[in-house]
Amino acid sequence: MFSALPRLLPRAGAAWGASVALQQQGLGLLGSQLGSSSSASGALMSTFSAYDVGQSSNIKWHEGAVPTAEKEKLLGQKGAVLWFTGLSGSGKSTVACTLEHALAARGRATTLLDGDNIRHGLNKNLGFSAEDRAENIRRIGEVSKLFADAGIITLVSFISPYKRDRDSVRARLEPGKFVEVYMKVPIEICEQRDPKGLYKKARAGLIKGFTGIDDPYEEPDAAEVVMDAYDAQGKQRSPEVLAAELINFLEAKGYLKGHS
Amino acid sequence: MFSALPRLLPRAGAAWGASVALQQQGLGLLGSQLGSSSSASGALMSTFSAYDVGQSSNIKWHEGAVPTAEKEKLLGQKGAVLWFTGLSGSGKSTVACTLEHALAARGRATTLLDGDNIRHGLNKNLGFSAEDRAENIRRIGEVSKLFADAGIITLVSFISPYKRDRDSVRARLEPGKFVEVYMKVPIEICEQRDPKGLYKKARAGLIKGFTGIDDPYEEPDAAEVVMDAYDAQGKQRSPEVLAAELINFLEAKGYLKGHS
Repeated sequence: MFSALPRLLPRAGAAWGASVALQQQGLGLLGSQLGSSSSASGALMSTFSAYDVGQSSNIKWHEGAVPTAEKEKLLGQKGAVLWFTGLSGSGKSTVACTLEHALAARGRATTLLDGDNIRHGLNKNLGFSAEDRAENIRRIGEVSKLFADAGIITLVSFISPYKRDRDSVRARLEPGKFVEVYMKVPIEICEQRDPKGLYKKARAGLIKGFTGIDDPYEEPDAAEVVMDAYDAQGKQRSPEVLAAELINFLEAKGYLKGHS
Repeated sequence: MFSALPRLLPRAGAAWGASVALQQQGLGLLGSQLGSSSSASGALMSTFSAYDVGQSSNIKWHEGAVPTAEKEKLLGQKGAVLWFTGLSGSGKSTVACTLEHALAARGRATTLLDGDNIRHGLNKNLGFSAEDRAENIRRIGEVSKLFADAGIITLVSFISPYKRDRDSVRARLEPGKFVEVYMKVPIEICEQRDPKGLYKKARAGLIKGFTGIDDPYEEPDAAEVVMDAYDAQGKQRSPEVLAAELINFLEAKGYLKGHS
C-alpha cells in the first residue's frame, strides 16, 4: 500500500495527524465518498475534505515540496550553479552580468549572487577573518543550492580563493549541478584594470590580506570551464565572447532544456 | 551623455576599467568601427570588442544584474514572499506544500523554504537560543528576499513566534512583497494533532522553550492573510480549501501576472 500512495505518505513534518492514521488503515481514498458526512471529530473532518476536490479548484493535498525535476520541466531548463571564481578584477561579475542578460534574452530564469546582494544582506554579519570567509562561502553555497533545487540557473560571483571552500560547495550539490568557472586572468592584467582601486590600496598596505597580494589564490585544478583571458591571437577576450562561450557550454550540456 | 547610455555605466563592481574611461570620453559607441584595428593595449582591445557583437550571438555587455521587473515579466508572475507563521501543528507546511503543488500545476515558479531544507543546510550552525532564533529568521528573510528579487513566489514555513523578527523581514522587502499568512489554529487543535509528538514531549518537560507551552507565540496583528481553522459552520477547513483561498488571494492581488 505504501508504494501505491507515495504522494499521500507523510514526511517528518506532516500535520493533520489523524489523516495519516486513516490512510494507513487504507481508508484514505474513500474520503471523497465520505466528504459530505458529518463527524464528531474535527481532526477526521479535515481528512474527509482532503479528497473532496470539488470545492477547491482541483487542488490536491500534498506533503513535501514540488520536486526539482518537476520545476525544471516547468521552466524548460535545469537548475545549476555557475560558480565564478578568480582574482579581483578578473571579470567575474562583468561576465556573470553579461551572461545573465543573455540568458534572460533567451527566456531563462536566473539569479545572480554577488557581493552587492550578499555582503549587504545575508552575510552582513561576517567579516574577513579566515573563519568568516569560510562561513561566507558556505552560506552562499547553501543559498545557491536552494536556487538550483528550484530549477534556477544560479550565477555566483565571488573571489572564493580557497579550494577547500569551493570543493565543500561542490560536495553539497548533485553531480553536474556545480559548474566551476575559473576566470584565468594574470594578476598583472587584473592589477592594470583595478576597477575598484583595491590593488593600489593593497600595494600601499592600506588593505591587508588581499587575494593575490598578501593572501593566496588557489587555482581550481578541475574547473568545468576555464575562461582564458586571451584568444589564440593573444588578444584579450571580451565579456561578450566569454558569455557566449558559457551559453554554448550550457546548451551543449543540456542545461537549457527541461526534462521531457 | 550619461542618461543616453544608462546600461553602459559602471556600478561599484565594474571590471575592465579602461572601457569606462573610454565611454566617459564619448568614444564608447565608436568601438564597433574600431573593432578591427590593432592596439598595443590589451585593456583597450576589450573595449573595442565590447561593441563587436557580430562574433558573439548578439550578446551585449552589461554591468548589473537583470532587474527584478524583467524577470517577473519573463516568468509571468510577481516575486513575493508568503510567510506562513503559526504554532507547531497549525498546518503551515501542509498548506504551503499543497499551495506549491497548486501553483506548479498553474505553471508558476516557486520555492519552499522550511525546516527540512534550511535547518539542515544554511542554518545548521544555529541552535535555539533567543539569539540563534533571531538569526535563523533573519537569514531566512534574506534568502526569501533573494528569491523574491528573482521573481519567484517564495513560500516560507516557520513557526517564527516573535513579531519583531517577522517585522524585520517585512521591512527588508518592498511594500507588497511580504505577505504574512497567519495560521490561526487554537493550540488545543494543534496539540490534538501533534504530528511530530512534540507537544507530548513538551508537556512531559522533555523539550524546553516550546512555543505555546513555555515560550510565547506572538500573533500577527496585521497579517495580509488569516487562515482560520474553522469555516462558518464550525467545520475544520482542509489544506486544499486553505490553499485555494491563497490562490484566490494571489490572483486577486495580481501576483500571478507579470509586468506588461
